[in-house]
Amino acid sequence: MNIKAFKNMNFVDGGVCAARGFKANGVHCGISRKALVEKEGVENAPVPKKNDLAMIVSDTPCTAAAMYTTNKVQGAPIAVTKENLKNGMAQAVIVNSVNANTCNADGVEKAEKMCELAADALGLDKSDIIVASTGVIGQPLPIEPIIAGVPALAEGLSYEGNTAAVNAIMTTDTCPKEVAVQFVIDGKTCTLGGMLKGSGMIHPNMATTLTFLTTDCAIDAALLHEALRQVVNLTLNRVSVDGDTSTNDMVCVMANGMAENAVISAENDAYEMFKDALYAVLMNLARMMARDGEGATKLIECVCTGAQDDKTAAIVAKSVITSSLFKAAIFGEDANWGRILCAVGYAPADFDIHKVDVTLASAKGKIDVCKNGAGLDFSEEFAKEVLSEEEIGVLVTIGDGAGSAVAWGCDLTYDYVRINGDYRS
Amino acid sequence: MNIKAFKNMNFVDGGVCAARGFKANGVHCGISRKALVEKEGVENAPVPKKNDLAMIVSDTPCTAAAMYTTNKVQGAPIAVTKENLKNGMAQAVIVNSVNANTCNADGVEKAEKMCELAADALGLDKSDIIVASTGVIGQPLPIEPIIAGVPALAEGLSYEGNTAAVNAIMTTDTCPKEVAVQFVIDGKTCTLGGMLKGSGMIHPNMATTLTFLTTDCAIDAALLHEALRQVVNLTLNRVSVDGDTSTNDMVCVMANGMAENAVISAENDAYEMFKDALYAVLMNLARMMARDGEGATKLIECVCTGAQDDKTAAIVAKSVITSSLFKAAIFGEDANWGRILCAVGYAPADFDIHKVDVTLASAKGKIDVCKNGAGLDFSEEFAKEVLSEEEIGVLVTIGDGAGSAVAWGCDLTYDYVRINGDYRS
Repeated sequence: MNIKAFKNMNFVDGGVCAARGFKANGVHCGISRKALVEKEGVENAPVPKKNDLAMIVSDTPCTAAAMYTTNKVQGAPIAVTKENLKNGMAQAVIVNSVNANTCNADGVEKAEKMCELAADALGLDKSDIIVASTGVIGQPLPIEPIIAGVPALAEGLSYEGNTAAVNAIMTTDTCPKEVAVQFVIDGKTCTLGGMLKGSGMIHPNMATTLTFLTTDCAIDAALLHEALRQVVNLTLNRVSVDGDTSTNDMVCVMANGMAENAVISAENDAYEMFKDALYAVLMNLARMMARDGEGATKLIECVCTGAQDDKTAAIVAKSVITSSLFKAAIFGEDANWGRILCAVGYAPADFDIHKVDVTLASAKGKIDVCKNGAGLDFSEEFAKEVLSEEEIGVLVTIGDGAGSAVAWGCDLTYDYVRINGDYRS
Repeated sequence: MNIKAFKNMNFVDGGVCAARGFKANGVHCGISRKALVEKEGVENAPVPKKNDLAMIVSDTPCTAAAMYTTNKVQGAPIAVTKENLKNGMAQAVIVNSVNANTCNADGVEKAEKMCELAADALGLDKSDIIVASTGVIGQPLPIEPIIAGVPALAEGLSYEGNTAAVNAIMTTDTCPKEVAVQFVIDGKTCTLGGMLKGSGMIHPNMATTLTFLTTDCAIDAALLHEALRQVVNLTLNRVSVDGDTSTNDMVCVMANGMAENAVISAENDAYEMFKDALYAVLMNLARMMARDGEGATKLIECVCTGAQDDKTAAIVAKSVITSSLFKAAIFGEDANWGRILCAVGYAPADFDIHKVDVTLASAKGKIDVCKNGAGLDFSEEFAKEVLSEEEIGVLVTIGDGAGSAVAWGCDLTYDYVRINGDYRS
């Protein structure tokens, strides 16, 4: 899919290694169900051979910030990371896939062990480590493969290790998701990059999914956190794949200052430029996540304009991209706009449904399907052509004001059911 | 599936014709897309031959009450029925399927025309008619087939016409849904029966789906409305198939008093007995609707107990039965209890997740899978056996108090996607 361009932003390769001074790596250490299953004597579990353990490390200490899932059930790594980030500083990330280390009696102990292993291998303090896990909930995390895997993981860290790392955080993702941008502050070129994993149990509520961001821009921890909070609300919190808010969601950012700009410590032009860069990266990652939603064949981008305020627009846009009926219709390339209007109608916000217009759009063109809350005559043939594309826009206009918002989702397909009907085996 | 039994309630056949003095009928009049499509010169639309127009009529005037969808988009028939029920009286219902008569400029005019046609055929005033429509949103309702169909519809009304009527309100339903019970008030045997249609765009929010109830019990209009409101909140509002709140939902009840009990006009024992009967009918219809959710192969019944109050329990139970991930796991007969705990965790209510226990149950037995928010060792083999049944119970216990609630849903299957990927063609 296409990267959305932004002015003053230069997209570059390298993901979490794009910024100066960040190394990464990923290995297959064997955190499979098999490790667990063999211990318990159950047969027939497959052994995923993909990378399952990753590390990101900065050459120098970083200011750092993170946001977490709002689910009451929270993975043990979240508790440990929250504690470690209390001082606003971090220097490395360790993360595994396959097992979420959630709802296990020994979860915190094992998350702390992961920090200890990373710290020992890197010569850091364990409180400088961000730890994360993603995968099946409620099965004890096998720590032995991680103990065995960390030395090679640390040994192989490199400034080109982003691909190995992003492969290690993928679960049901069908493709790696990385974005990086360069921008100029004080005449210094700064870089901000990141990687993200989807692709199920994804619904906007604080942070969504696992996302790791690195930058060489110098910014103090408080503003880094504020920028992250604001931009996450406009990007990751505007994505829904299936309405389920995960237990392990986390987005974190580390800033090592190696671009040598003056430290951003006030809400000035440099801060706004940094936020723009953060938006360019997270917005593109959000779109990638939605497009690669479990089983998805299409990206749905709903833009709501003309609302009384941005909040109302966001509620409406999210209601549309969350509707199972509408998502299934898009899979069928069926211009069943009544389902869009239905989802607009049950959005919990205040507006006059008789002032709502709906237009469908794609690279093939635009087609107005609903005006003032009532259906328009339109060519079903052309509508089918518009919906045959992989990126579908839904434009909802409310005649109330200047509020606007964008939300991203995907179609609901047979493969979503297949993937989730038997995820654990 | 099995009818849930209740003490003091005798289940009987006859649906909306079970109570004394109620006739019904259903016919195929041809409200197909074809009627519309031919007019517009488009080819290849199928002609459904099933009944698409139904009528229910009482021999004598009835007190009547209804509840409606909370969607801002509301079908034209809802506006007309609301107006006609302002005096708390009605004597007949006319309802069509295939076309929802929603989001059309001439919708109210056509809904009023339907009332007029029914009233003329039955010798009633048009303000005594309840009108409803269900089907595709946003396509003009072809009124000609209804004009042509009403005479035969009225002609064929009979005290055994419930089957013809219930067949006429089915859309993607795979089976008709009818329940009736008898109970005794003042030594008089009263009967209350009803029919309901599902099976997609169903989510709890006021009333859900189209439901028509008839009774010969004498009860004043205000108490009839209050009883309906209370029982709908415990039954139809506890069902979710896909999280989409329809535009045309309505549940209505007509009471003609022919059982000759003293008119219920206070919240006394007779009123409680009437509410019990209403619960027995609507609870069974709600279960039937969930079991026949679009594409469903299983009924999921989530019982939450031990909450601080019933409201909290209802929020938790509904969150579980609404989770797409959990619904897909149940389709796969996969005891992925982490998804249950995840859905409990993001339910917007106040409780301690570390006091939550989860048990799975069916006719094959019970299996504890989670205690105090953490996973238990259990036999995957036995869990698979428990989940192989068609009715699956999920018991969620919170250690906070005596609040409890039940909610009903269904699994998420390939067929849900197939049915909704191309509903209109």
